[in-house]
Amino acid sequence: MSYTLEERGNLHSLNYRLFFKNAEGKYISPFHDIPMYADESQNIFNMVVEVPRWTNAKMEIATKEPLNPVKQDVKKGNVRYVANVFPHKGYIWNYGAIPQTWEDPSHKDEDTGCVGDNDPIDVCEIGTKVCSRGEVIKVKALGVLAMIDEGETDWKVIVINVEDPEAKDFNNISDVRRLKPGYLESTVNWFRMYKVPDGKPENEFAFNGEFKDKDFAIKIIKNTHIFWKDLTSQKTDAGELNCKNTCVSPSGSPYFCSADEAKAVVAGTSPLGKEETIPSSVDKWFYFQRK
Amino acid sequence: MSYTLEERGNLHSLNYRLFFKNAEGKYISPFHDIPMYADESQNIFNMVVEVPRWTNAKMEIATKEPLNPVKQDVKKGNVRYVANVFPHKGYIWNYGAIPQTWEDPSHKDEDTGCVGDNDPIDVCEIGTKVCSRGEVIKVKALGVLAMIDEGETDWKVIVINVEDPEAKDFNNISDVRRLKPGYLESTVNWFRMYKVPDGKPENEFAFNGEFKDKDFAIKIIKNTHIFWKDLTSQKTDAGELNCKNTCVSPSGSPYFCSADEAKAVVAGTSPLGKEETIPSSVDKWFYFQRK
Repeated sequence: MSYTLEERGNLHSLNYRLFFKNAEGKYISPFHDIPMYADESQNIFNMVVEVPRWTNAKMEIATKEPLNPVKQDVKKGNVRYVANVFPHKGYIWNYGAIPQTWEDPSHKDEDTGCVGDNDPIDVCEIGTKVCSRGEVIKVKALGVLAMIDEGETDWKVIVINVEDPEAKDFNNISDVRRLKPGYLESTVNWFRMYKVPDGKPENEFAFNGEFKDKDFAIKIIKNTHIFWKDLTSQKTDAGELNCKNTCVSPSGSPYFCSADEAKAVVAGTSPLGKEETIPSSVDKWFYFQRK
Repeated sequence: MSYTLEERGNLHSLNYRLFFKNAEGKYISPFHDIPMYADESQNIFNMVVEVPRWTNAKMEIATKEPLNPVKQDVKKGNVRYVANVFPHKGYIWNYGAIPQTWEDPSHKDEDTGCVGDNDPIDVCEIGTKVCSRGEVIKVKALGVLAMIDEGETDWKVIVINVEDPEAKDFNNISDVRRLKPGYLESTVNWFRMYKVPDGKPENEFAFNGEFKDKDFAIKIIKNTHIFWKDLTSQKTDAGELNCKNTCVSPSGSPYFCSADEAKAVVAGTSPLGKEETIPSSVDKWFYFQRK
């Protein structure tokens, strides 16, 4: 399946929205309508790239808006940028989410003892290429880090694009440790510190900050897929989440979205305009003693 | 003194040239015609920014061309990009040179025992802002690292923009060590490793890779200014260097360049055109065990 993108509004402003269409040109939700599996028999997952490597704009699937376009997160009324924590520049992976997954905020995880964060599961893609915003790539899971953010479990799955020139060499978390020395340590440190420049406390981790392996990661992803199924089949209360979709729920469901309704959603947003310049304050580098 | 820039050719191609003009709109050489001192009594120097922080294109003052425009270095017939050595993305400072300095390749340094590298002295500006290519800023020296590149001394002076919001806190190399923890270690490591992805050996350092302080740095800069004076006054043979200038040597000197001659030099280069895209291969990250 191939997907195309439609940008609306002004990049790096509050009105920016990135909508997804399927191969037939029909608007879809990247949260609900892109299959979790690219190849179930091989445990190959789809990944929606939200933040390209080395950029700072915190782009994310808008879980509470119809069709769940990618938008820039908002902090105190302004679009949000993640600080550069030395020695890093922006995000150090292609960062995004696996569709059709959900970390249920009413479910307490048996390993971490913490509830989910109400989002699709996050992934860090460690391949060679800098991906583009909204790109849908096929990834294999290599391991997982259990970040604990203010009492919520926020899994970070380490993945690699199966089309990466070196993908065949990466089949478990130990391969990352061996072939990309320092990257896993930097990953923990990045997640520990990235909100500190904004005045937030350091994030914590289950399992003493250690990465769990490929099998564990796949188990976690599969669990979040079950939570998502319960969500979209209305077994679980959706709260503020917007579950409108064109491919999953039947036309009688309150979550069913017709092509006309989807077009009206997009038409109701700002037309594509000139992008805003990223403020130079985003270039600041923050220095901390490394743990 | 304020300077303006004139771009010629296509950015990121072999024909790209960035020419400098003074406040009167007259073409000048950034190597010879911009004064070394912005304020001699305060030891504040001018710096010509060649490579903005976090970029990879190896831009440099073309020492062998008339008017010494900034151009992209060439390797095997292609424009040269510096590899990303994990955890770094491109250059980790605003990188450039102090005008009116020269590391004399016939002079053996008393400390390092090595000759100069035939270039103006290199500087690493550690301030908050990402500067732009060709920007001329006022800097103060904080310390210096003695890199040894294939038997040549290649001083790297650590400086900060005097207009940086934190400039008043940085007055010696110890301030960098204290306020930007890890930056000096990364600087040594960066210079040690940056050519290794291209198949070159690691660079070495005099003084066991330790940084010398502000006073030492200023002494070194002043020495390179004396070498430059000997160069432009024809006491030293210029070899392949192009010493044409509009402000330093008298009209009888072979190095004197009239305004008409300067205009003809610029007119002889390619007109400004569309920039070339940076190849995605430049995005590769190289991983080494850190020393």
